[in-house]
Amino acid sequence: MPGIIECVPNFSEGRDLQVVEQIVDEIRNFQGVKLLDYSVDADHNRAVVTFAGEPEKVVEAAFNAARKAAGLIDMSKHKGGHPRMGATDVIPFIPISEVTMEECVRYSRELGRRIGEELGIPVYLYEEAATQPHRKNLSAIRKGEYEGFFEKIKDEAWKPDFGPAEVHPKAGVTAVGARSFLVAYNVELDTGDIEIANAIAKRVRHISGGLRYVKAMGVMLEGKNRVQVSMNMVDFQKSALYTAFELIRIEAGRYGVNVVGSEIVGLVPMEALMDCAAYYLRLKDFSMDQVLEKRIHE
Amino acid sequence: MPGIIECVPNFSEGRDLQVVEQIVDEIRNFQGVKLLDYSVDADHNRAVVTFAGEPEKVVEAAFNAARKAAGLIDMSKHKGGHPRMGATDVIPFIPISEVTMEECVRYSRELGRRIGEELGIPVYLYEEAATQPHRKNLSAIRKGEYEGFFEKIKDEAWKPDFGPAEVHPKAGVTAVGARSFLVAYNVELDTGDIEIANAIAKRVRHISGGLRYVKAMGVMLEGKNRVQVSMNMVDFQKSALYTAFELIRIEAGRYGVNVVGSEIVGLVPMEALMDCAAYYLRLKDFSMDQVLEKRIHE
Repeated sequence: MPGIIECVPNFSEGRDLQVVEQIVDEIRNFQGVKLLDYSVDADHNRAVVTFAGEPEKVVEAAFNAARKAAGLIDMSKHKGGHPRMGATDVIPFIPISEVTMEECVRYSRELGRRIGEELGIPVYLYEEAATQPHRKNLSAIRKGEYEGFFEKIKDEAWKPDFGPAEVHPKAGVTAVGARSFLVAYNVELDTGDIEIANAIAKRVRHISGGLRYVKAMGVMLEGKNRVQVSMNMVDFQKSALYTAFELIRIEAGRYGVNVVGSEIVGLVPMEALMDCAAYYLRLKDFSMDQVLEKRIHE
Repeated sequence: MPGIIECVPNFSEGRDLQVVEQIVDEIRNFQGVKLLDYSVDADHNRAVVTFAGEPEKVVEAAFNAARKAAGLIDMSKHKGGHPRMGATDVIPFIPISEVTMEECVRYSRELGRRIGEELGIPVYLYEEAATQPHRKNLSAIRKGEYEGFFEKIKDEAWKPDFGPAEVHPKAGVTAVGARSFLVAYNVELDTGDIEIANAIAKRVRHISGGLRYVKAMGVMLEGKNRVQVSMNMVDFQKSALYTAFELIRIEAGRYGVNVVGSEIVGLVPMEALMDCAAYYLRLKDFSMDQVLEKRIHE
């Protein structure tokens, strides 16, 4: 059981689709990984690719794509609305199934080392893979962008984790890291009062005293006269969907408001919903290995 | 998205493991299907194989295994404790993912036709694939067993669906059909009173007025002073796990008894638990295509 990780590399090209296609091809044609999605933004001049597979293969495919991007993109000529610092700007690994965050950190180090040594590009480890607290946040690393890095990299605090302490003139610098899967989860209420949704969101989200791995805000559903608590579940293993759901239900009670329903926007790892079934059914000794589809794809 | 079906062929050999291995190899080595389990019973003189994969490939692998069994097993010399009528005794297809029961019925007809025409073995379609009501139940077909079929097959009511109206002297006759996946699901109560478990089981099971696709009985958990309602969920899409769980909870209430927990024994299709999560979270517009693992394995 090799497990599955997801990888969402961002490349600094969103206008020349031939270039984007050549980079994406490195992933699309790589045996053993699955291209799930990619999107191109001309204003941002940036492409975001989502793929998944067994960790070793994902690392290999990500390296091949980064090498291709380094050969095709010239950061000294790049302009775009989105902050950026490298041809391959950022590569996060995300544990999906049978892989721990610690293992994803190891994979990000492995990839970072290869990009540094074999491609000669300075690499910064970020988020869960960060080697220093001030490098945890991607936007802190990226501050100053490509143009500012020629100075920034000379600062001891910004010595790269891998590769030369010198900006690659064409490929810039790259951040590689590990983070949790983000589930977009919304709970709808039978009221049109946005203040109630905001008050509940405040109780549920981490920043104002709620669940550690939940971001939340109230949102008005236009044309429906209903509101929802819109959430980003940034670590569903630690702050579960059912916990957020039940907490919202409880808070709504004080306003005499009911939960009408909830929705998941986009993709969700199987485990996030299995956990909910296991909670409500009070399942004992349940293992994900009992899931038939999991056994089939082992 | 070709979907996935499961197949659980039963072969009339449980003593000569070399023979069993040769039959199982036809499935194990077939590219594109996954051998999930097989068990051999010497008393029954019978082997049960479980595998799954894309329908067309499962049909092909099942055919190959049936052909191999026909070449290796001689029913005229077979003895065993389990009723049997053919070298390949029975082949059920079970819809798992993105495949309807109707499609499984078509696949069972396709396989039945091939076994009849290419191997010269009489084939009876059973369960959901049955062409006549009296052939729905497998035990009705199997009545008289191999030895009795030389007479039985002459009866117009037992003319085979495919193949010659004559017992294959070595391979006997085979039943091919389609049925639902069976989930073994137990709900534990905080009482040691087996009569309460039995009374609840009676309310929940189909035969005595309960849910259409649930079989249930009370079971004493030895050494725990607790009982459980032990169930076979024979069609979880129509009679859902959460429905049975909630019904038991409601019935237990009249005895002042609580549900301690529940358990799934063995394998469970992802959808059976996803349905439960969707029910309790009141999920709207949720599609199984949103499940990341499903997208990855498409």
